[in-house]
Amino acid sequence: MDDIEQRATVAIDVGHVDLSPDRVNDMASALEVWDEERISALVHPLHYTELAALIERLPQHLRRTLITALGEDLHPDALSAIDYAVREQVIDLLEPRELASVVQEMDSDDVVDFVEDLDEADRRGVLEALPEDDRAQVEESLTYPGNSAGRMMQHELVAVPEFWTVGECIDYLRRAADHEELEGEDLLPEEFYDIYVVDPRRHPVGKLPLNRLLRTRRPVLLSEIMRREIKVIPATMDQEEVAFLFSQRDLVSAPVVDRDGRLAGVITIDDIVDVIQEEQEEDVLRLHGVPETDIFSGVVQTTRSRFAWLLVNLGTAVLASLVIGLFDATIEQVVALAVLMPIVASMGGNAGTQTLTVAVRALATRDLTPANALRVIGKESLVGAVNGLLFAALTGLVAWLWFDDPVIGVVIAMAMVSNLLIAGLAGASIPIGLQRLGVDPAIASTVFLTTVTDVVGFFSFLGLAALILI
Amino acid sequence: MDDIEQRATVAIDVGHVDLSPDRVNDMASALEVWDEERISALVHPLHYTELAALIERLPQHLRRTLITALGEDLHPDALSAIDYAVREQVIDLLEPRELASVVQEMDSDDVVDFVEDLDEADRRGVLEALPEDDRAQVEESLTYPGNSAGRMMQHELVAVPEFWTVGECIDYLRRAADHEELEGEDLLPEEFYDIYVVDPRRHPVGKLPLNRLLRTRRPVLLSEIMRREIKVIPATMDQEEVAFLFSQRDLVSAPVVDRDGRLAGVITIDDIVDVIQEEQEEDVLRLHGVPETDIFSGVVQTTRSRFAWLLVNLGTAVLASLVIGLFDATIEQVVALAVLMPIVASMGGNAGTQTLTVAVRALATRDLTPANALRVIGKESLVGAVNGLLFAALTGLVAWLWFDDPVIGVVIAMAMVSNLLIAGLAGASIPIGLQRLGVDPAIASTVFLTTVTDVVGFFSFLGLAALILI
Repeated sequence: MDDIEQRATVAIDVGHVDLSPDRVNDMASALEVWDEERISALVHPLHYTELAALIERLPQHLRRTLITALGEDLHPDALSAIDYAVREQVIDLLEPRELASVVQEMDSDDVVDFVEDLDEADRRGVLEALPEDDRAQVEESLTYPGNSAGRMMQHELVAVPEFWTVGECIDYLRRAADHEELEGEDLLPEEFYDIYVVDPRRHPVGKLPLNRLLRTRRPVLLSEIMRREIKVIPATMDQEEVAFLFSQRDLVSAPVVDRDGRLAGVITIDDIVDVIQEEQEEDVLRLHGVPETDIFSGVVQTTRSRFAWLLVNLGTAVLASLVIGLFDATIEQVVALAVLMPIVASMGGNAGTQTLTVAVRALATRDLTPANALRVIGKESLVGAVNGLLFAALTGLVAWLWFDDPVIGVVIAMAMVSNLLIAGLAGASIPIGLQRLGVDPAIASTVFLTTVTDVVGFFSFLGLAALILI
Repeated sequence: MDDIEQRATVAIDVGHVDLSPDRVNDMASALEVWDEERISALVHPLHYTELAALIERLPQHLRRTLITALGEDLHPDALSAIDYAVREQVIDLLEPRELASVVQEMDSDDVVDFVEDLDEADRRGVLEALPEDDRAQVEESLTYPGNSAGRMMQHELVAVPEFWTVGECIDYLRRAADHEELEGEDLLPEEFYDIYVVDPRRHPVGKLPLNRLLRTRRPVLLSEIMRREIKVIPATMDQEEVAFLFSQRDLVSAPVVDRDGRLAGVITIDDIVDVIQEEQEEDVLRLHGVPETDIFSGVVQTTRSRFAWLLVNLGTAVLASLVIGLFDATIEQVVALAVLMPIVASMGGNAGTQTLTVAVRALATRDLTPANALRVIGKESLVGAVNGLLFAALTGLVAWLWFDDPVIGVVIAMAMVSNLLIAGLAGASIPIGLQRLGVDPAIASTVFLTTVTDVVGFFSFLGLAALILI
């Protein structure tokens, strides 16, 4: 009995955070009829990530209604959590004054993430709304390249000198917290996991996980318990590189240094989780020619973004047709060839894509490097050849029985082996080659691959048929 | 000058952690000639993640040599960091006694991750090598389903009663640390970011980030400063769900409770990063029919794992051929049809895959839900239709000029519009439908999609040609 009571007084929340479709529908109908009381009752209990999800999932015209209704009451963290494609629309809907008021409440790294995508005038407007110190920090971050550590880092951190003792460090933190409470001025970050130890020139010399500070007695010097082997991240390092470093070394936070090696900020793992998800998603989408837009983009934007890729693919398809056109006389004599020819090309495309997918992922995780590139290409070609032999036997038999002609079975079998071998070879070497040329293998690999497997597929099958059958 | 000296005494390491190909090659040649001194000189300075990467990247026979050479000196964290496909091989190479000695040094969650994939006999062998307490913890974790929170959690955590003050809590941590040093017995986790506050029945009632403990004065009660709104994770929750929760709520650690709601363990964000990477990778690989193996698997295993997918694809391709076969008389009369027909099918396949990729990702991130499913399907069909019209005009013109026949241009244009519309419709509704049936949309979607776009592509083009041209 008292267990139930206890549970009721503690806001412990077990289970899913998913925003239920019912709640989205409730909100949609409240917005349709502009039921102000109901709208605010529905928004109020939401966590900011849920509010962001709600805004994303509403139809475009209701999104407009909700944003206008919220105005400067829009939760700052909700604004940073909203998907990129929708965020632009939200920014346009807010008055400059409302926007500034929301931005003032954000952490410095979120402000950077937010203003870097605004046009020049809007950006200046937002920056001017910030207190001077915050603005200087944001402006410093913006001097670093896009997607760099300098853009991701938060400036709020705790740095202490190495000659302090554990007791002095704890007293400093307590005094700072007291001062915050009295003056309402932020001296400490809202959350932090490590304290950085710096020399007089603010170069980081060590890192102090908070649990080390807590388990040590007051008179011990920080220099005795700090970790000296720390990974220091230059502010110019690319975010993908930073994420790789975090996941390789199981880091929770890492110091970022400016061009002079001075401690400029800190990157924490929650930002890294976002980067990992973004980068992986980007790779997958690029592999299939879906750049920059997503499920929340409008029809026009989506259509436009997909057009370019389809146009490239049309080029590939026409090239394949030209190859078929070389053999139109052969096809006229043996129409079975037209019936069977897509099989070889399609099998090559699929086998090649299997290899390609593995190779692109392995390049991203750096399991595939110049050191083992040749070995991987060799292995994939061999796998292609072995599967080629198996499917040659199978397809040859089917074709023979279908058209009652053993020779057509032999032709398709020979074409199958060569196309699957080439598919393995091309599927591995195309992304490796592109990366060596400095091109993102995720963007361009599939076009090259299907061109190769289509051309080789049609040419080998129809060419062999022309030689052997006629 | 003193700056350089200072830098030299502090092991600060700026930049990449990548294992250079040169070092892999050096090691390979040292192993080839069994230069013991050189091998140990090369292994010694490596971080455990680098050692794991080195083992993965060596050719199979040298991997064997290195593992045998290392024996029980293999770093326990390196063993957990090794890629799954290679890990099995490494386990087979170690003597049971060596294996047990390595496992004893691992954290409880790593041991679980490690033994859950061993066969019954090997698993018992490893478990028996563990001290009794550790074994009980590992066995408890193993009672939870695979890929659940109970398998991921570490049992090492700090739990305190809510009637303690900040001072009592800090004193407890210091005493525990002193005791560890004197007795060599582990009482505190190696790293921790939060302390859990529990009631007398060990139900979690709050969470205390270490920085809150550090900024508060000694007489304050823990119950006054702990966070009461915490996410509690049932040990049976699936790891994908756990990862979603962490990234939604920007969590760094979360308590795991057993079937009675008692605090059983803790999950920290570094484990979540691994899960996110695994799950995303799995989705991409499944989408292209590459299950469970990867770049480090052997030729036989790789060939076998890819065979099934290619066999399914052969079925699809044969189905497409059967559709073409329906129209062999038409093709015999107008051989241009054979030349042009792959264009329509290929464009449909590509447009459909664009939609499919976006839909599968959106289902995984839960941006696509039953609440907006119909809207997304409608939008994607519309995008397909609009791009269909654009490419119909383009392809119709090309076909007309190529074969000097406006009617063939009209036929391919009509087929193109219908196939791209169907591609958008199918690309969105197939994954949504599969997920509603409880099937992982990443596994089966592409087969269904290409079947649809091939059949519709060939049927509409050749069928319209048969109607209009002849």
